[in-house]
Amino acid sequence: MAHLDIAKPLLERNDRLAAEIKQRLDAAGIFMVDLMASPGAGKTSTILATIAALRERYRIAVIEGDIASDVDSQTIKSQGIAAVQINTGGACHLEGDMIARALDVLDLDALDLIIIENVGNLVCPTDFYLGEDAKVMILSVPEGHDKPLKYPGIFQISDAIILNKVDTTSVFDFDREAFYTATRGLNPAAPVFEIAATKAQGVRPWTDWLDARIAEKKGASL
Amino acid sequence: MAHLDIAKPLLERNDRLAAEIKQRLDAAGIFMVDLMASPGAGKTSTILATIAALRERYRIAVIEGDIASDVDSQTIKSQGIAAVQINTGGACHLEGDMIARALDVLDLDALDLIIIENVGNLVCPTDFYLGEDAKVMILSVPEGHDKPLKYPGIFQISDAIILNKVDTTSVFDFDREAFYTATRGLNPAAPVFEIAATKAQGVRPWTDWLDARIAEKKGASL
Repeated sequence: MAHLDIAKPLLERNDRLAAEIKQRLDAAGIFMVDLMASPGAGKTSTILATIAALRERYRIAVIEGDIASDVDSQTIKSQGIAAVQINTGGACHLEGDMIARALDVLDLDALDLIIIENVGNLVCPTDFYLGEDAKVMILSVPEGHDKPLKYPGIFQISDAIILNKVDTTSVFDFDREAFYTATRGLNPAAPVFEIAATKAQGVRPWTDWLDARIAEKKGASL
Repeated sequence: MAHLDIAKPLLERNDRLAAEIKQRLDAAGIFMVDLMASPGAGKTSTILATIAALRERYRIAVIEGDIASDVDSQTIKSQGIAAVQINTGGACHLEGDMIARALDVLDLDALDLIIIENVGNLVCPTDFYLGEDAKVMILSVPEGHDKPLKYPGIFQISDAIILNKVDTTSVFDFDREAFYTATRGLNPAAPVFEIAATKAQGVRPWTDWLDARIAEKKGASL
């Protein structure tokens, strides 16, 4: 986000809205995860793989953030999962007021998990708290192993990091060791999950992690 | 860019600075191109391939925009090409004042072409005029054929569109026809160049286009 000085009142208003969202979700016992990544890193296919793994255990809805179009929410709905499309117009990230309006159209009594697909962007979503329980980022192998160095903020604030399209490591010049060294330097704590979402490869450790976080929250809210 | 209402004075100030930059470059007979793309779409490798094709004909410098790090400018400098690194801190795009300062450290009398590598982002750079003669965007095949639908603004304002990593079309589920239909719907005029930058494949039509634009400007400025 450019010009944090100008945007400060905006961020403060956003944080207040996000805190209200968090209270609503806590009261309803819903876990919300904010999924962030570059355009085309595989957010939607990761969500589809996550839904496939967890739909027997949890009632899931998806909030889709895009500059334009509703292709992703149509894809989610075709799986029989509730999806709310947010079109931001020109905005490069989702904000609290958008999420609050999306929650208004969901039946919160009938949900355990809400997955937010943020706008494709490695920069702007970093600064905006949406009331989520976890921020998770995806980097895809074709983007390159040097991305932690160039976009450190999003690596630092993520609770978990997914490395997607790992089946294409040999096609691209992806140096796994350089990636892990840079990522660990920025964020020693977050687990890193290597997956190939469209092939449903390696998804289990990621969904187990998410499952444990959801169960923990539901246990606490009972 | 979020909140264009708040950002309007900012954009107006930027446009004034960009107009001054344009005058400086016109006076010096320098062509400047602003290269925009997602993180990891191949901006730096496209710049390297472009330098290799045009360095015998033109004196080239590169302005590198990144949130953090100087890995890209180091790569450019290792080719014996002048490079200025701009670290934006948190900002998701370059602005006129950053380019003006970068020009101050370049010898404008000894240059024909300046290539700007913008911050990796399909959204924010769209709104900011930098005094460039052309805006060019790169989409990479792994990002997917649906990106014109989701990020229409950048496709609409680009003077040329590069489709990179076309050697991986078979690895990914990239529907070339869907991509062209969507792109043409947004921007019927811009040429689309299919390349594989790291393998220097298909680069010639792109560099011929750029070469003709540079020659045209130099002819006009003589």
